[in-house]
Amino acid sequence: MTTRFLTGITPSGIPHLGNYAGAIRPSVRSQSGSDVDNFYFLADLHSLIKSQNPAQTQQSTLEIAATWIACGLDTDKATFYRQSDIPEIPQLSWLLTCVTGKGLLNRAHAYKAAVDKNAEAGLDPDADVTAGLFMYPVLMAADIMMFKAHKVPVGRDQVQHIEMARDMAASFNHIYGHGQELLVPPEAVVDEHVATLPGLDGRKMSKSYGNTIPLFTPREQLRKLIMGIATDSRMPGEPKESEGSAIFQIYQAFATEQETASMQQAFEAGIAWGDAKQQLFEHIDAELSPMRAVFDELVADPAKIETILLQGAEKARAVATPYLAELKKAVGLRDLRTALIAVPATDKAADSVPQIKQYRESDGQFYFKLATAKGELLLQSKAYASGRDAGAAVKSLKLDGVQALDALQAQLQAYERTPELLQALDALVATHAQD
Amino acid sequence: MTTRFLTGITPSGIPHLGNYAGAIRPSVRSQSGSDVDNFYFLADLHSLIKSQNPAQTQQSTLEIAATWIACGLDTDKATFYRQSDIPEIPQLSWLLTCVTGKGLLNRAHAYKAAVDKNAEAGLDPDADVTAGLFMYPVLMAADIMMFKAHKVPVGRDQVQHIEMARDMAASFNHIYGHGQELLVPPEAVVDEHVATLPGLDGRKMSKSYGNTIPLFTPREQLRKLIMGIATDSRMPGEPKESEGSAIFQIYQAFATEQETASMQQAFEAGIAWGDAKQQLFEHIDAELSPMRAVFDELVADPAKIETILLQGAEKARAVATPYLAELKKAVGLRDLRTALIAVPATDKAADSVPQIKQYRESDGQFYFKLATAKGELLLQSKAYASGRDAGAAVKSLKLDGVQALDALQAQLQAYERTPELLQALDALVATHAQD
Repeated sequence: MTTRFLTGITPSGIPHLGNYAGAIRPSVRSQSGSDVDNFYFLADLHSLIKSQNPAQTQQSTLEIAATWIACGLDTDKATFYRQSDIPEIPQLSWLLTCVTGKGLLNRAHAYKAAVDKNAEAGLDPDADVTAGLFMYPVLMAADIMMFKAHKVPVGRDQVQHIEMARDMAASFNHIYGHGQELLVPPEAVVDEHVATLPGLDGRKMSKSYGNTIPLFTPREQLRKLIMGIATDSRMPGEPKESEGSAIFQIYQAFATEQETASMQQAFEAGIAWGDAKQQLFEHIDAELSPMRAVFDELVADPAKIETILLQGAEKARAVATPYLAELKKAVGLRDLRTALIAVPATDKAADSVPQIKQYRESDGQFYFKLATAKGELLLQSKAYASGRDAGAAVKSLKLDGVQALDALQAQLQAYERTPELLQALDALVATHAQD
Repeated sequence: MTTRFLTGITPSGIPHLGNYAGAIRPSVRSQSGSDVDNFYFLADLHSLIKSQNPAQTQQSTLEIAATWIACGLDTDKATFYRQSDIPEIPQLSWLLTCVTGKGLLNRAHAYKAAVDKNAEAGLDPDADVTAGLFMYPVLMAADIMMFKAHKVPVGRDQVQHIEMARDMAASFNHIYGHGQELLVPPEAVVDEHVATLPGLDGRKMSKSYGNTIPLFTPREQLRKLIMGIATDSRMPGEPKESEGSAIFQIYQAFATEQETASMQQAFEAGIAWGDAKQQLFEHIDAELSPMRAVFDELVADPAKIETILLQGAEKARAVATPYLAELKKAVGLRDLRTALIAVPATDKAADSVPQIKQYRESDGQFYFKLATAKGELLLQSKAYASGRDAGAAVKSLKLDGVQALDALQAQLQAYERTPELLQALDALVATHAQD
């Protein structure tokens, strides 16, 4: 069986070298294999949670799409689309919203982090928290389950969201599936060996530290940035530690084992920092420069990217459109011409049948009572001395329903002639007629 | 100008006489007028919050649609559709979700009521609260604003939701509108004189009291129910109080002033309760029976209702589809072929321009600093003895941007060469070039 992988890409900001080595390159390289079906999407709806700059959203969408294609995403083989081109996703998101406990969302790490931050600052817990941040996990679950994705490559911090999607699937399947797996619970795939690169200052390369090397920065700028990587003050000729060296670690992420070993020797032999940086620069640039050329070309031709994304959306919707129709039908949003689907003969069926019960109390007297399937009392008889009389009363209700009530009046405790009662009596008659 | 009214109808349960007199009849009668454009929709997405019984959802949708048409909803004149047939609505709902503070939703009455109920029961505040209940106001805002509805007839309890929709419109227009009213803030229309009918037991007719008279119950059943209305024990011939009499109040809701006056006299003259009930029954039945015939016919012909609803959806989407495209464009979800829209020259423009500032401290020395538009410090100079030198430094940054940094190194306090800094310097150069 083919395994479907789904990878979400948030189009915000420009990817850096760390993103490339840690996420883009391994993802693109994993595309091979005939038993693998890859979905990649630009999560532009998600990006609206953080970015409220429309021109930036447009520009980022273009640049991130160009980046992934330049890095080797095979858009013929994979399905590559823009989230906002799939109207089925927000629709599924609403269906999931209705089966998701709010408590589940309260426990999301990202939301809790925002609340904690507010608490520390002495602010209202939800200060500056948008409903978008809060509902993120539901939209993400819809992203995944709209395409029955089996595996979702994510970072550690996203594992909880996949678990939430599984919870939503379980809840939806329980309520609407009657044993059928309407939604496929996805699995998180966490690469435990993600290459994290050090940044310009030696700390992990991260936008939040402001120490990144933009992936497709022009060659000259790349050189400048690499020359600015922090080093210690050892002089040329002095042996250098490769361990803990940002230069060495970045080099390693782009080099073969053999090349890495040579660099190791060069460090021990006291290579000058400037020379090490120059080698690092040439090495990275050799890998990036063909991709940079493709990237620059694509960014200059937005129509090409647009066409690719629209074709991807068409492929994706070929899955999503019929599947959403199925899910809508399952929850009751149906073409009215379809025959009213009888509730299957599971415990759900018992749910809709009222319960009439004859019984004997400790006082030795006989009684009957009528209750809804949920156990809400509708009718309660007074005491009968004989079980046969009580049985006859029950039988008259089963045969004549509401018509029998008047004759039984004297033997009934006070009750309200509610629509529920009338409905229950009708159901009782109908069920009895089938017996 | 035409005023657009939008009325949401939740397809749950069977409408009763009180719904008819209080909501359906006045709404349908208000359809006239050439300056009025009516939108009616079956809020089946909303109904999923409460009902998780698919067959019931389907059946209710059919019956409620049939009810409104039977009661005179003019589906040629008005736009009558099913919410779930408009994929644009959940999409707009997400756009609104991203501009809605979670705190706003925390304050929704319906949500707070659920929390209070849990607190009383000693449960977790969000026990059994679904995300659907919590997000209800956002979906409702999307329902309304997707069609630029001006007026929304609602009950008192829904006024807050309309206010929330206005808040969302204001927030969206502020962020994305640049002075343009992208979303139309709706107005609540509360009929202060809603006819509320008493039910079988004399309390307000309400499903929650179980004292209702179903609107299109068969004639015989209607008679039975009316005969069961609670009365006092006055005998025929004894004068009766019309005030406080359920029979009289219901009669009044279906009678002309003259007929009401006659009934008043009959009460004073001591009409027997049985006769009063019989007159009430005949009177109501006379109004309902032609509608009941239409209703029965429609319910027996789901294909007809389906066709009407699909035609309605087509009319509704003729508004929604191009309008959503406009809104998506406004937030940055754009066809990449569209030229990158420059941010208009409002305060937004100032937002993206970094600030470089030269100033003199109390020590008499000169300084400059570069900060992002939001005021985050990027560069801070050391002291200059001469203002002209500081000015020259600023000028070099404006002219050469990042290229000027090295030469200024000695006069700068420690800084990080972050992407933000590089971006800010690029923007500085670009802005200066336009000067």
